[in-house]
Amino acid sequence: MKKHNFSAGPCILPQEVFQKASEAVLNFNNDHLSILEISHRSKPFVDVMEKARSLALELLGLEGKGYKALFLQGGASMQFLMTAYNLLENKAAYLNTGTWSDKAIKEAKLFGELVEVASSKDKNFTYIPKGYNIPTDADYFHCTSNNTIFGTQIKHFPETEVPMVCDMSSDIFSRQLDFSKFDLIYAGAQKNMGPAGTTLVVVKEEILGKVSRTIPSMLDYKVHLGKDSMFNTPAVFPVYVSMLTLEWLKNFGGIAAIEKINEQKSTLLYNEVDRNPLFAGVVATEDRSHMNTTFTLTNDSLSETFDAMCKEAGINGLNGHRSVGGYRASMYNALPVESVQVLVAVMQALEKKA
Amino acid sequence: MKKHNFSAGPCILPQEVFQKASEAVLNFNNDHLSILEISHRSKPFVDVMEKARSLALELLGLEGKGYKALFLQGGASMQFLMTAYNLLENKAAYLNTGTWSDKAIKEAKLFGELVEVASSKDKNFTYIPKGYNIPTDADYFHCTSNNTIFGTQIKHFPETEVPMVCDMSSDIFSRQLDFSKFDLIYAGAQKNMGPAGTTLVVVKEEILGKVSRTIPSMLDYKVHLGKDSMFNTPAVFPVYVSMLTLEWLKNFGGIAAIEKINEQKSTLLYNEVDRNPLFAGVVATEDRSHMNTTFTLTNDSLSETFDAMCKEAGINGLNGHRSVGGYRASMYNALPVESVQVLVAVMQALEKKA
Ligand SMILES: Cc1ncc(COP(=O)(O)O)c(C=O)c1O
Ligand SMILES: Cc1ncc(COP(=O)(O)O)c(C=O)c1O
Ligand SMILES: [Mg+2]
Ligand SMILES: [Mg+2]
Ligand SMILES: [Mg+2]
Ligand SMILES: [Mg+2]
Repeated sequence: MKKHNFSAGPCILPQEVFQKASEAVLNFNNDHLSILEISHRSKPFVDVMEKARSLALELLGLEGKGYKALFLQGGASMQFLMTAYNLLENKAAYLNTGTWSDKAIKEAKLFGELVEVASSKDKNFTYIPKGYNIPTDADYFHCTSNNTIFGTQIKHFPETEVPMVCDMSSDIFSRQLDFSKFDLIYAGAQKNMGPAGTTLVVVKEEILGKVSRTIPSMLDYKVHLGKDSMFNTPAVFPVYVSMLTLEWLKNFGGIAAIEKINEQKSTLLYNEVDRNPLFAGVVATEDRSHMNTTFTLTNDSLSETFDAMCKEAGINGLNGHRSVGGYRASMYNALPVESVQVLVAVMQALEKKA
Repeated sequence: MKKHNFSAGPCILPQEVFQKASEAVLNFNNDHLSILEISHRSKPFVDVMEKARSLALELLGLEGKGYKALFLQGGASMQFLMTAYNLLENKAAYLNTGTWSDKAIKEAKLFGELVEVASSKDKNFTYIPKGYNIPTDADYFHCTSNNTIFGTQIKHFPETEVPMVCDMSSDIFSRQLDFSKFDLIYAGAQKNMGPAGTTLVVVKEEILGKVSRTIPSMLDYKVHLGKDSMFNTPAVFPVYVSMLTLEWLKNFGGIAAIEKINEQKSTLLYNEVDRNPLFAGVVATEDRSHMNTTFTLTNDSLSETFDAMCKEAGINGLNGHRSVGGYRASMYNALPVESVQVLVAVMQALEKKA
């Protein structure tokens, strides 16, 4: 049965990417060796790494602007640590918009003074704070562009003189932004970019090398940059599949093209959440994420029926995050519009039935 | 054409593992979803992680002895850092047997006093130092069981009262040892265990929690243990393929059974290196690695011919490490005896030709 995969991450990737990835596990590059058994120093894989790095910059419009891309291990959570280790000398400013920001703050506190410029914790992170001030003497400002768990998304980024660091794990490559406003962007691959196991870091080189502490090699961006993201063995297969996914996106027309589809999908679903009396959105309308739609049933007693209907329709991964409950439909780049139509149809069928 | 893959890592894995891995990229667990698109919190993947962790302990004979297994990101190089971060309060003792030990030492120096108990640097790491003393007031002793680059291997581990930490990246699961002599074992997957992107850490829990510094969450073994190796998104696919490889090894008869085959392969090759006047071994005979056989041509002018003959025979990955040159035949668990026979035949054919 065809599945409609709304999983929050790891999540759906393009079907042609699965196909190519599956073939490469048996025979990569027509060399009759598996992608899993070749040296990461072999030319075919060095080419994969270079292509992944340059596609990332190209898709973000950051080529020739002083940025470099890295594919590192450790997940976005390791970046909570590495950003602070590499950039925090005295003081850093953080915007707290949810669990992931919170974790980033906790890690950074080990390295210097932390200023929480604003937080939406007062309303369980159901909105994006606005109108806060960023201290001009901060070493950097850190924010989370899309809050995967709560379903909010920053639509307007602040203007600031200090370097801007952004965790874009759950909405990178999904919408057009002036990415040159950011000095360091990081994103775990496992949403719009690839499978779990690699993390993209895009960094403006000029912001590095300014802290006085000694940085352990594996946590030092300059060390990884100096070795073209091959300081040690990279996660070969996750990087390869990320490269395939970025290639797919480029052929699709890039971020501009996918943004249109993403808007179509989220409009479809939010309209139904609003229209259908059985469902209610969770977060402030203006801050709604185009990637993760969070909603609840207005009548809890219908949850068993709704869950069963979803299952029957082949819908997967609609449960909310363990920490908040409810429902969450994640609609990343590779999710077809058709899957959203199926979900909306189930929501309407529930209304008729109830 | 059939390939004989002597790559030093990433390296050959069992063919049936490639087959199953390839299928899982299209349809995992017969759920009609790719292993790449399912949540790491889904029951099927939690089961994979638990199975990988328990198979690792079982194969090492460490079940019920106070050990736990983790599958972490970052590679073995990240363990150079994590071992020191978690265990080094005042002083640590390191045995220097090559590039990897050297890197481990460099990283650990950031955290306390480093005693290099012995080094084989004087002879370019072509032997394993013996008869050294380990200070009894060291927080731990660190060694590298197999030196992938130079082709030496520790056959007898020292007796010591201090906790013993071992980088077994390139010979774990290849030979029988009393693994309970070690307090922490780590190994990048990309040799005997699976594809690049995950690292096994086996740790005796009682040695943790003794340093006074605050350890960042992502570097803290206790944090990862407390979350059953799921503190953050693990490298799903590399962990899955590692689980398949460990399962294969168990069905094969475990370490005892594979050790016999490994001895057969290394005897075959070392005998030919010794017998054949065109080839010479590089390291002290008693310290020869059963995983990585390093050798040179006694007549350099034959290298082009030999390389061409190897290529024609489908031999892959025989070049020595960039830093040392020469040849290196890596004969990990999954390499068939037949591949070594093909290599020996090529060496003999060169002799006839020359
Ligand atoms: C916005 C955001 N940041 C960070 C993370 C943590 O990523 P990882 O599990 O790769 O460490 C996630 C995971 O879902 C996320 O959604
Ligand atoms: C013995 C040993 N230790 C450590 C490493 C480094 O591993 P990684 O590249 O996963 O960091 C290697 C890599 O080949 C190795 O052979
Ligand atoms: Mg969040
Ligand atoms: Mg409604
Ligand atoms: Mg070495
Ligand atoms: Mg000889």
